[in-house]
Amino acid sequence: MSSFKIALIQLAVTASKSDNLLRAAKLIREASEKGAKVVSLPECFNSPYGIKYFPEYAEKVPDGPSCEELSKCAKDNKIYLIGGSIPEESDGKLFNTCTIWGPTGKLLGKHRKAHLFDIDIPGKITFQESKVLSPGNQMTIVATEYCKIGIGICYDMRFPEMAKIYTDSGCDLLIYPGAFNMTTGPAHWQILQQARAVDNQVFMATCAPARDETADYVAWGHSMAVSPWGKILAEADAGETIVYADIDLSQVAEIRKQIPIRIQKRDDIYKLVEEK
Amino acid sequence: MSSFKIALIQLAVTASKSDNLLRAAKLIREASEKGAKVVSLPECFNSPYGIKYFPEYAEKVPDGPSCEELSKCAKDNKIYLIGGSIPEESDGKLFNTCTIWGPTGKLLGKHRKAHLFDIDIPGKITFQESKVLSPGNQMTIVATEYCKIGIGICYDMRFPEMAKIYTDSGCDLLIYPGAFNMTTGPAHWQILQQARAVDNQVFMATCAPARDETADYVAWGHSMAVSPWGKILAEADAGETIVYADIDLSQVAEIRKQIPIRIQKRDDIYKLVEEK
Repeated sequence: MSSFKIALIQLAVTASKSDNLLRAAKLIREASEKGAKVVSLPECFNSPYGIKYFPEYAEKVPDGPSCEELSKCAKDNKIYLIGGSIPEESDGKLFNTCTIWGPTGKLLGKHRKAHLFDIDIPGKITFQESKVLSPGNQMTIVATEYCKIGIGICYDMRFPEMAKIYTDSGCDLLIYPGAFNMTTGPAHWQILQQARAVDNQVFMATCAPARDETADYVAWGHSMAVSPWGKILAEADAGETIVYADIDLSQVAEIRKQIPIRIQKRDDIYKLVEEK
Repeated sequence: MSSFKIALIQLAVTASKSDNLLRAAKLIREASEKGAKVVSLPECFNSPYGIKYFPEYAEKVPDGPSCEELSKCAKDNKIYLIGGSIPEESDGKLFNTCTIWGPTGKLLGKHRKAHLFDIDIPGKITFQESKVLSPGNQMTIVATEYCKIGIGICYDMRFPEMAKIYTDSGCDLLIYPGAFNMTTGPAHWQILQQARAVDNQVFMATCAPARDETADYVAWGHSMAVSPWGKILAEADAGETIVYADIDLSQVAEIRKQIPIRIQKRDDIYKLVEEK
């Protein structure tokens, strides 16, 4: 199938996990009813974002209530569900983990954030995920009936190598649940997405939580989908909303033919390799 | 020295090589008098841009009249001069070549465009440099008293690997003379520069010829300098002009400390290498 609709659910995340799950399920149903076949939730959709919250909200994957709900949502609505991310507990370690579910409710893959968000912009934003989280050690591609999708989480987006390996591996769409903030959001959120889209000639989408000015970490919002030409197809503002975009896969092949950078790259003078 | 001024000369290139050289020299002098220490000319500054022009305008490097003039300009003004590009003839082959000159008039390096511009966007722009040009086979870094500068030409900008290797090799500034067109210019010129700047946390500058609506190839113009934060420091419109930007190198170190992607990248799961 060469065209399908995606939905990016810019959920207003609260301190109540059960409420977050309930409202995520409601909005997933709404997106599905409007025709979305691939639906994404935001980074840290079941918990406030902050290292002090991660231990309390963490669950086993897939044997926890959040995964149970996500599996059910995917199955009930017969959609592919990119489950944003949740704090995952495994063998005494914590991860920031995205689970991906197929239309039968089956877990298709899980991505543990590989690049932890440790930044320090004095007077603006200081955050150190690595104080409590461990990084994932692999890249994550899921095969759907529409196309292969490469998965990253938020800060992973700053590392172009990952997106390039995804597209070299056949992904036509990249989805990165993420929560940039009020400093890096206006500065870099859009640039990074257009960069990944244009450099790789793929569709690129992000899904952020809605902005909550009272939260410890104030998210930028602006969930977005970008075409392989770098065009912004859809963009949220700051509040809770669902953003839709039509993914016309024929554009990928067309643009790659028009500007054939994939065959023009110079493997004889530089080379990007996946280390396995 | 941690701060210096660059000038990007958006020259109106005509069919008269001698006139192009004369006006380039005049504008270089003007830029120098205004305090610029590193000055760039546009891609194909001594010749109209088009494969039918390259054989006629081509010269030996450095033994040709254009290089002679560039050397003299650098020496007379005691500046580093990024000589845009010229069609170069060597051993019966043609190249699109940027020469770089030091304040004593010495040739510091030359970059032959490594990625030839072969695109085909039906009804918009079709161009095939490879019909007459041969590609360069190496990357080009020049050391100045201010910082190392990585050099690319136009279409080279679409290949992020090159810019990343330049910055991994210690460049704080990338300068790419280039001539995007009326299709790819508005779509990608700015995105690509901000992408290279933000992904590598370096200063990025481009220098285009002025737009000539009567030319075979209508250039987009918009010579530009971007900060390591992705901020547009200076931008030309379409006409002949000189764009100036202050390059404060302390920003490079500061931003790299704030958002430490260079030490956070995951060489254990992907790796970009230079092939020598």
